Amino acid sequence: MTIESVSGEGIDTRHRPVDYGRVFTQAIDRLHAEGRYRVFIDILRNKGMFPNARCFAGHNGPKPITVWCSNDYLAMGQHPKVIAAMEEALHDVGAGSGGTRNIGGNTHYHIDLEAELAELHGKDAALLFTSGYVSNEATLATLAKVLPGCVIFSDELNHASMIAGIRNSGCEKHVFRHNDLQHLEELLAAADPAAPKLIAFESVYSMDGDVAPLHAICDLADKYNALTYLDEVHAVGMYGAHGGGISERDEAADRITIIEGTLGKAFGVMGGYIAADRMIVDVIRSYAPGFIFTTSLSPVLVAGVLASVRHLKASSVERDAQQAAAARLKALFTNAGLPVLPTTTHIVPLMVGDPVKAKKISDILLAEYGVYVQPINYPTVPRGTERLRFTPGPAHDEAMMRELTDALVEIWGRLELRQAA
Amino acid sequence: MTIESVSGEGIDTRHRPVDYGRVFTQAIDRLHAEGRYRVFIDILRNKGMFPNARCFAGHNGPKPITVWCSNDYLAMGQHPKVIAAMEEALHDVGAGSGGTRNIGGNTHYHIDLEAELAELHGKDAALLFTSGYVSNEATLATLAKVLPGCVIFSDELNHASMIAGIRNSGCEKHVFRHNDLQHLEELLAAADPAAPKLIAFESVYSMDGDVAPLHAICDLADKYNALTYLDEVHAVGMYGAHGGGISERDEAADRITIIEGTLGKAFGVMGGYIAADRMIVDVIRSYAPGFIFTTSLSPVLVAGVLASVRHLKASSVERDAQQAAAARLKALFTNAGLPVLPTTTHIVPLMVGDPVKAKKISDILLAEYGVYVQPINYPTVPRGTERLRFTPGPAHDEAMMRELTDALVEIWGRLELRQAA
Ligand SMILES: Cc1ncc(COP(=O)(O)O)c(C=O)c1O
Ligand SMILES: Cc1ncc(COP(=O)(O)O)c(C=O)c1O
Repeated sequence: MTIESVSGEGIDTRHRPVDYGRVFTQAIDRLHAEGRYRVFIDILRNKGMFPNARCFAGHNGPKPITVWCSNDYLAMGQHPKVIAAMEEALHDVGAGSGGTRNIGGNTHYHIDLEAELAELHGKDAALLFTSGYVSNEATLATLAKVLPGCVIFSDELNHASMIAGIRNSGCEKHVFRHNDLQHLEELLAAADPAAPKLIAFESVYSMDGDVAPLHAICDLADKYNALTYLDEVHAVGMYGAHGGGISERDEAADRITIIEGTLGKAFGVMGGYIAADRMIVDVIRSYAPGFIFTTSLSPVLVAGVLASVRHLKASSVERDAQQAAAARLKALFTNAGLPVLPTTTHIVPLMVGDPVKAKKISDILLAEYGVYVQPINYPTVPRGTERLRFTPGPAHDEAMMRELTDALVEIWGRLELRQAA
Repeated sequence: MTIESVSGEGIDTRHRPVDYGRVFTQAIDRLHAEGRYRVFIDILRNKGMFPNARCFAGHNGPKPITVWCSNDYLAMGQHPKVIAAMEEALHDVGAGSGGTRNIGGNTHYHIDLEAELAELHGKDAALLFTSGYVSNEATLATLAKVLPGCVIFSDELNHASMIAGIRNSGCEKHVFRHNDLQHLEELLAAADPAAPKLIAFESVYSMDGDVAPLHAICDLADKYNALTYLDEVHAVGMYGAHGGGISERDEAADRITIIEGTLGKAFGVMGGYIAADRMIVDVIRSYAPGFIFTTSLSPVLVAGVLASVRHLKASSVERDAQQAAAARLKALFTNAGLPVLPTTTHIVPLMVGDPVKAKKISDILLAEYGVYVQPINYPTVPRGTERLRFTPGPAHDEAMMRELTDALVEIWGRLELRQAA
C-alpha cells in the first residue's frame, strides 16, 4: 500500500488506521527543526585536476569549485596507474563480477588483492568486503557470535559501522572513554576473567584527528587475554613506511588480532577488508552473512585498488606531501586566529559548535568563494562540537590554502564567530 | 593479541584462559564435517566472450571454461554501451567518489541514476546503496525503527539480507509459509489492528525460480493496512516491458510501498537501491546508518549502471533471448530425464538433495568438461534440497546447452543419481 492511500479513510473501519504518512513526515520535520536536515551537494570531480570539481546545484550549468573535504586523501582516485589498471580490467573482464564470492564472483583479481593486503599488514590472510562499513559490521557481528559469551570493549568515539556490528552481535558491551586506558582497564578488570573479550578501537579518529595508543591498548589486551580489533580506515595508505597504517608506523601490527581498512579513502577507489590470522579470516569468510550473500566487488574496482596499494607500498611521496600540506594549513589557520583543533595527523578540524552556523559558513564558502567543505553535524560528531573538517592533500597548493584562510577570516568576522582561545 | 599466543600458557594464571584458536578451529571443523566448507573457484571472465572464462585453480596456467551460474543474467557486464560509459566516467572523474553521499561523495551520476530508477518503477524517488544486501538491511532495519511498534510479516524464503534487516530492526516478526496467502492472512488477522505493519517478500525467488502473487499480497496489505516491501533483485532488468521487474509485468508497482533491486545482476555492475514515495526515501536517506556512514558507489560503477538501465528500458532483445534459452535448457533437461525443477522463470535448478554429491558433480563438470556451475548448499538453501542452479542467458547457445546436457547425463549415470520422478 502507498502511504497516501492510508492518510484519509482506512479500509479497516473498526480502528483508526495507522497514518504512515504522518509518522514519516514527523521524522523528517525533527531534522529540519534541529537544523540538521541534509542536502547533498551535486558535484563532479575533474580527473587530473583534483581538488578542482564542478558543482551543479542552483547554477546555470556547472560552476568550478575547489574540494576541501574529500577522503580521497592522496588523490589516488586520479592516479594514472589506478586509472590504467581499471581500464585494462574493464576491457579484459567487464563491468561486474556477476556473482557472490562463492557463486561465480570470485576472480583472480580478488585473490591477488587479498594476498597484497595480507602482506601489507604482515598477516596470514585478508578478506575483501563491498565497503569498510560492511567489513566492520559483518566482522564484529560474526566474530562475537562465534565466541559464545564474548564481551566487547568499545571506544566511545568508534565509527557507526563498528557500533552497528557490535549491536548486531548481541554481545555484552562496555564503552570506554575515548583513548582512556585507565577506564578501559577498570572495565576489563571488572569483567568475568573466563569470558572471551574483544577490544574494538580506531587508530586515527577521523573527526578529531587524534591517534590511539596502540601498544598500551595491546598491553591491556595481553594482560586480560583479550582479542584486539583495529579500524585503520583513516590511516591505511597514509602512515607507515609502506602505508600499512598506524600499526605499521608504531610496529604494533603483530599485536593486533584483526586490522580493518577501507579501499575508498587513501586508496582512492571503493571497498573494505580485514587482515588477520588465517583461521580468523576463514571463520569470517565462512560465517558472515554480509560477506557471503552479496555480489562481490567489481573486478574493475579491485584492479584499481591493486595498483593503488602497490604504488603506495613503494612510494612515500604522496604521504610526505599530505603531511606537509596538513601542517601548513594548520599553521595558516592558527596564525589567522581561527579555532583549529591541534591534531598530530592529516585531519584539520575547525570548530564551530553550532549546526546552523556550520552550515551557514559552508554555504557562504560555496556560493561566494567556490570552496566546498561540508559542515559536520550530529550524529557524525556529538552535538555542540559541530565543525568544518578540512582534508588537505598533495594536490592542495599554497595559493589555495591562502585563499581558503583569507575567506574564512572574512566569514568569521562577518558572522562574528568565536576565535581561537 | 594474536590467537596463537593464547593457546599455550595464559598471562592470567588464576584462570584457564580462553583458547581462542580452538574455538575458531572448531567453527571451521563443523563445516568440513558437514561437507559444506566452501572453496572459492578462481576465475576470470573474458569480456566479449562471456560465458567463456578462464579458471586458475589447480592448473598450469588458466584453462578455458564455460560459466553456467553467473547472475550477470543478460551479459550486460560486457555490453559495449556499459563499458564505454564506465570508461568515460573513469577518465572524466576518476576511480572513486572520495566520500560519503553527504560529505564529498555525491556526484551528478548518482543523482541521474536515482532519477532513472525512480522512473523505471513509477515512483517519486530512489536511493542508491553500495549493494543490494545493504539496501535490504539498511532499509528494513531503519523503516521499522521509525515506525514504533511495527510488526513485520516475512516470507520464509526471504533472502539473508532481508532477514538481517528485520532482525536488526528489533521488531516483532512473523514468518509466513512461502507464498502462502492463507497463512499470511491468519498472521495479519491475529496481529494488533492498531500496530504499523510491513509485509516483506521477493518477486522471483532465486533458488526455486518461482514468483510471488503480487496482487493477492497487496490485497491483504490493503485489507490489513500494511506497508509492502518487495525485493526484485532477481527480476529487475528481466521482467516487464522496460525491465521494471515482476511489479511492472503484473502492473502492481503502484501498489508496492518500497521496491528494492540490485545493480549487480541483470544490470551487470554492482550496487543496490530502493524506489518509493519521496517521504519514505527521505526518511531512509536521513536515518539509515548503512546509507549514511559509507563511501558512496564509485561514479564509474554508477555511470555503467546508467547505461545498462537505459539500454534495458528500451530493448527487450536480451530479455527475450534469456527466456528462450531458459525454456530450451529446461526442455533438454526434462527430455534427458534430469530432475529439473519446473519453473516459470529464467532460473533452472537441478535437484540433487545432498551436499557432498552436489559438490562432486560440480567438481567433475569443471575438471572433465570445462563447465562451471557452483553447488548450492545450506544455508543458501534448506538442507536436503542441495542443487545445481543454472542461469542460461542470451550468450548460451544451442551447442553449449547440448554439451552440458550430455555431460550431466553421463555424470548422473556414473554416480547413479536419482532421475526425474
Ligand atoms: C572510522 C571509519 N570506519 C569505517 C568507515 C566505513 O568505510 P567505507 O567508507 O569504506 O564504508 C568509515 C567511513 O566511511 C570510517 O570513518
Ligand atoms: C533475493 C536477493 N536479495 C538481495 C541480494 C543482495 O544483492 P547484492 O548482490 O546486490 O548485494 C541477493 C543476492 O546477492 C538476493 O538473491
